[in-house]
Amino acid sequence: MIIVMKTEATTDHVASIVDRVEAVGCKTHTIVGADRSVIGVVGDGRFIDMRQIGRMIGVEKVMPISKPYKGASREFKPEDTIINVGDVSIGGSNMVVMAGPCSVEGRTELLEIAHACKEAGAHILRGGAYKPRSSPYSFQGLGEEGLRYLAEAREATGMPIITEVMDPSLVPMVCEYADILQVGARNMQNYTLLNAIGKSGHPVMLKRSFSGTIEEWLMGAEYIISHGNNNVMLCERGIRANETETRNTFDVSAIPVIKHLSHLPIIADPSHAVGKWEYVGATSKAAVAAGADGVILEVHPKPDEAWSDGRQSLKPERFARLVRDMRAIAQAVGRDIEPNGVPVYTNGQVREKIIIEN
Amino acid sequence: MIIVMKTEATTDHVASIVDRVEAVGCKTHTIVGADRSVIGVVGDGRFIDMRQIGRMIGVEKVMPISKPYKGASREFKPEDTIINVGDVSIGGSNMVVMAGPCSVEGRTELLEIAHACKEAGAHILRGGAYKPRSSPYSFQGLGEEGLRYLAEAREATGMPIITEVMDPSLVPMVCEYADILQVGARNMQNYTLLNAIGKSGHPVMLKRSFSGTIEEWLMGAEYIISHGNNNVMLCERGIRANETETRNTFDVSAIPVIKHLSHLPIIADPSHAVGKWEYVGATSKAAVAAGADGVILEVHPKPDEAWSDGRQSLKPERFARLVRDMRAIAQAVGRDIEPNGVPVYTNGQVREKIIIEN
Amino acid sequence: MIIVMKTEATTDHVASIVDRVEAVGCKTHTIVGADRSVIGVVGDGRFIDMRQIGRMIGVEKVMPISKPYKGASREFKPEDTIINVGDVSIGGSNMVVMAGPCSVEGRTELLEIAHACKEAGAHILRGGAYKPRSSPYSFQGLGEEGLRYLAEAREATGMPIITEVMDPSLVPMVCEYADILQVGARNMQNYTLLNAIGKSGHPVMLKRSFSGTIEEWLMGAEYIISHGNNNVMLCERGIRANETETRNTFDVSAIPVIKHLSHLPIIADPSHAVGKWEYVGATSKAAVAAGADGVILEVHPKPDEAWSDGRQSLKPERFARLVRDMRAIAQAVGRDIEPNGVPVYTNGQVREKIIIEN
Amino acid sequence: MIIVMKTEATTDHVASIVDRVEAVGCKTHTIVGADRSVIGVVGDGRFIDMRQIGRMIGVEKVMPISKPYKGASREFKPEDTIINVGDVSIGGSNMVVMAGPCSVEGRTELLEIAHACKEAGAHILRGGAYKPRSSPYSFQGLGEEGLRYLAEAREATGMPIITEVMDPSLVPMVCEYADILQVGARNMQNYTLLNAIGKSGHPVMLKRSFSGTIEEWLMGAEYIISHGNNNVMLCERGIRANETETRNTFDVSAIPVIKHLSHLPIIADPSHAVGKWEYVGATSKAAVAAGADGVILEVHPKPDEAWSDGRQSLKPERFARLVRDMRAIAQAVGRDIEPNGVPVYTNGQVREKIIIEN
Repeated sequence: MIIVMKTEATTDHVASIVDRVEAVGCKTHTIVGADRSVIGVVGDGRFIDMRQIGRMIGVEKVMPISKPYKGASREFKPEDTIINVGDVSIGGSNMVVMAGPCSVEGRTELLEIAHACKEAGAHILRGGAYKPRSSPYSFQGLGEEGLRYLAEAREATGMPIITEVMDPSLVPMVCEYADILQVGARNMQNYTLLNAIGKSGHPVMLKRSFSGTIEEWLMGAEYIISHGNNNVMLCERGIRANETETRNTFDVSAIPVIKHLSHLPIIADPSHAVGKWEYVGATSKAAVAAGADGVILEVHPKPDEAWSDGRQSLKPERFARLVRDMRAIAQAVGRDIEPNGVPVYTNGQVREKIIIEN
Repeated sequence: MIIVMKTEATTDHVASIVDRVEAVGCKTHTIVGADRSVIGVVGDGRFIDMRQIGRMIGVEKVMPISKPYKGASREFKPEDTIINVGDVSIGGSNMVVMAGPCSVEGRTELLEIAHACKEAGAHILRGGAYKPRSSPYSFQGLGEEGLRYLAEAREATGMPIITEVMDPSLVPMVCEYADILQVGARNMQNYTLLNAIGKSGHPVMLKRSFSGTIEEWLMGAEYIISHGNNNVMLCERGIRANETETRNTFDVSAIPVIKHLSHLPIIADPSHAVGKWEYVGATSKAAVAAGADGVILEVHPKPDEAWSDGRQSLKPERFARLVRDMRAIAQAVGRDIEPNGVPVYTNGQVREKIIIEN
Repeated sequence: MIIVMKTEATTDHVASIVDRVEAVGCKTHTIVGADRSVIGVVGDGRFIDMRQIGRMIGVEKVMPISKPYKGASREFKPEDTIINVGDVSIGGSNMVVMAGPCSVEGRTELLEIAHACKEAGAHILRGGAYKPRSSPYSFQGLGEEGLRYLAEAREATGMPIITEVMDPSLVPMVCEYADILQVGARNMQNYTLLNAIGKSGHPVMLKRSFSGTIEEWLMGAEYIISHGNNNVMLCERGIRANETETRNTFDVSAIPVIKHLSHLPIIADPSHAVGKWEYVGATSKAAVAAGADGVILEVHPKPDEAWSDGRQSLKPERFARLVRDMRAIAQAVGRDIEPNGVPVYTNGQVREKIIIEN
Repeated sequence: MIIVMKTEATTDHVASIVDRVEAVGCKTHTIVGADRSVIGVVGDGRFIDMRQIGRMIGVEKVMPISKPYKGASREFKPEDTIINVGDVSIGGSNMVVMAGPCSVEGRTELLEIAHACKEAGAHILRGGAYKPRSSPYSFQGLGEEGLRYLAEAREATGMPIITEVMDPSLVPMVCEYADILQVGARNMQNYTLLNAIGKSGHPVMLKRSFSGTIEEWLMGAEYIISHGNNNVMLCERGIRANETETRNTFDVSAIPVIKHLSHLPIIADPSHAVGKWEYVGATSKAAVAAGADGVILEVHPKPDEAWSDGRQSLKPERFARLVRDMRAIAQAVGRDIEPNGVPVYTNGQVREKIIIEN
């Protein structure tokens, strides 16, 4: 059940509704929007008299909801969510470009790639310190050492960093280094991990699983949001279909679907979706045209020597050219990409309007 | 096996190679390009001495090929194929917009939609006279009566028409009315139909099947091309994956893959792919950004009353807006869409350079 | 709409109902069962007063139906359909074994395999004369010559023959040779072909397409049945999923689903489903345990030399062992397989009871 | 690399090989089979001279291996693995039946179902105390309270218990209660969890993920085995394909594939695969015929009132009938199911022959 408050409702009005609902054993989750507040009611609502609530002071309307996700739904929160990470806003009028190597391979290598990415136009640095590898005998990442290198690269370039976390018990430690946590496709329904991240309140990018439906993906986000962590962005990284020329099938229509069903930002990961650098450019441009709030790309100066996923990595010069191409398309669809790799400040109007409680 | 001729080779040189190869029981298929001719050899090539052929006058090189499709491959014919239909060029620098109703419902209705589509910016009129319906009890199309209405709409608007054919025995009759034949997803591997179309020499748009791989799709094209009909364009219309919010999953990466592997034009069909008009716009824009040579869209003035697939049809005004949006993206990626629904003339330079034998 | 007649209703009663219904423009399709007749009404039933029909003499009840297939549904015809081909009954208490080479390669080879199959326990001989090959350059089958060899093998062994037809215009000719037509997976929705077969009245085995749902498959059967041809058996041959160790994924649960939703016999094709002979045996046994009415298997004395699909063919001695194993399982689930390759006579009681009009 | 020892090799011989290999930085993993020992070498083997190792005392042969999984492969360990849990042997000549409710709903309810399952022929009791639910707002299981009820039901019936664990940090606690840990489909690639279970040494049943390939599944097993825990059984629970009449598609051919590629026991979970009780029976019988080492079934006395997955639960009497049917099929394929729900003792010969180190 969703209780939409009037624009003139006070925080006291909201509080008395919350008291009433929680008195019958339900939990509430309030989002303070720019114009009005909305209260999501979670739990067994059979003991709540909807009409009675509807007559309380400050209430505009009470709506039953059928979607299994509430906090992630646009019905619940009509305004786009914007997540601020350092000086970068994700989900606003400007698109963001995240780039970097698949795995952090060493201090020097990372610093070199980080500078190259920034010069080519990236706003956020990606790099894996904990790698989910299908084989237990493959390189599993540098671990905390890798995180330290990432933090150093952030110091050197000013770019916030995003990195994957797989172990729920390591969430607090990874939060100390990373600006954005990444949940990989294999863990979209690892509820222990999602709960740990929910409790951390840290910004997170949740990848869609190999065969996950959009509803299951939003339910994964709901696990995080149900703990009060609204800083969730989604990432489309390709799903499994019959095609073998590409590694996975990039579901470009998932972008407008997410925009329709949810208020969360949506990022595209063309590198993992197609698995071959030849097809990364066209797929990235498609994602921008379809309305993605950002892209995350693998960049490596020597793809042939990369420790993982070199086949899909772009060389820095090719990446720079792609950023220029994406910018032209972003402008054609009424958005922009901040050039030169400087932080992305969303225009003032939008940032004033949206206030995300957290 | 592919025999690449020197640029200075004469038609006599080509003819003597062809004689030699056919003498051992192989068939040949010659493409006269702008710069040079290329001879594809089909059949059991064990009796052909590649080195001996390589020493014949006019031969530049002889290449064995591994791809199972030859005539459809870019290895075989590096230049983009451009198909001219009336005054419209498909596969050139300008993109084409095909639009119209799912099925032809009546004379007056079709003329109304045709004019609306043209005004909104369409270049080719689509409409089904023979409908492949999953139920034998559903409306199966108006048949030849529908084709007559389409021909009348072409007279009235100047737009070439594209329509589906399912029955091999009707190919000659449908060719009399239609400028472009359409092969639907269910018939991608209906070899009897493909052979009949191959023999007709008529331009054709071959849709990808629900679970067809790109290789199988190109092999379907090869069936047509093997009869000497090179006027084949491909159409990505969504494949089956696990997602249910959209009707199918639009494989946007298939566009750069086809451009990489083949010289044939590639058209996007976002309407059937997503199945809901809300997502058609973003998906169309993505296709343009990814490099499609055209889009085919369902347009209907009263979608709620359409006899089939109304849920995915755009109203004319929404369609007009989309054409403007697609044009901005086309320009951002170095192409264009001829505005105002007038025929698409590819710029002279390209049309001079590419000469497709047929 | 389905009109169920009383057991004591006469043919005159049925005729007068049919007249009444057809007078308002609907078509009818009557099935004369052992106990009672059932009239399926096809078309726009808005002008039929269901209550009025329900009061007519001989009518037991009138039911609206929701399934999009009528003639194929068990609601419409509760008794199992049994199809008699020569002396073999398909769909009765005994299971049938169809076996033979993928393609007919020559007269001598076919006769040799046919005798080997019969000795090993087969009841019906399979063999392709028209082969749907993904490449236009691959061996396409011996055509009518192959059909002649099949007919000769039938003479020599007494086994009825099943063979594929792809071209609607060849249906009458193939019917002259074959006891059962086969529609391949690629043609499950080739409606022109299905209509031609429907009109022929000939027994047919309809394979499920690569990504066809069970409903779409039954709708394909409905196309044939809507012409009054009830001699339709279905064939599960594996669908596309993510697995690559097997060629396709054999959907064993489709067997009980078809038995639940339809009265048509269901045959399993483990050879094409798994694509490797090592896995054919276990998959065949699973199909028998799940309730299949028969299996169709590829058998070849020298699989390594087969012109097509040798990788999945069983050698005759392995096939004979498998028939014995399947028989033990058939008996464990209350059915049987007639040994020694002699024709399968269903026990008298069942054959007396079920009378299939056609 | 795999080092196969001679049958007469002593433990000293094995130890000296292990020393040699570990001296160059590789890890070893030794399996002591009935006839001979086999040493798996994990890590960068470039510094190991295969020929030199091959000349050492006690070595029969040294084989490079190409499969990415080693410990799970039949190449590495040709004999079937048998896992003993209480008095029940899994993977031997007798099949096992695991049954119980989807979730543990209460003490009294569980005891009632447990007794009913045992009487009907079950050998192992299943029941979820930690439930992976797609919604954070759904019932998540009784947690440790549920585990206590399970332990009590084991006391009362003598049946070992299997239950799911999702949180790596809870593995030690769940091990105290459960005889077999279950890893659900969503966690097949949750490497943190797999590592924790590997270290525990506890018997575990690893379910295949929704779209996991067999190779990825075996790699998940390899994560557990790489810690020296060989007590891994696999569970096929249906994969995602296009079919909607069943919840998932039960990949029955995965059973012979696993038997071919691996030595690990394979269990079938028809309840989750098909999602409707009507189809559970036929699918279970198919699994037995295909060679499964056991089945796991949901049983509930009042399916309509079950807190989760009631739609797919069998009533006890239907379950009892199914056990009898499965037994007949097991005997037809040369195995058996111990009747009356008493523990399953594999026949002496097999148990003497196979000695699994651990």
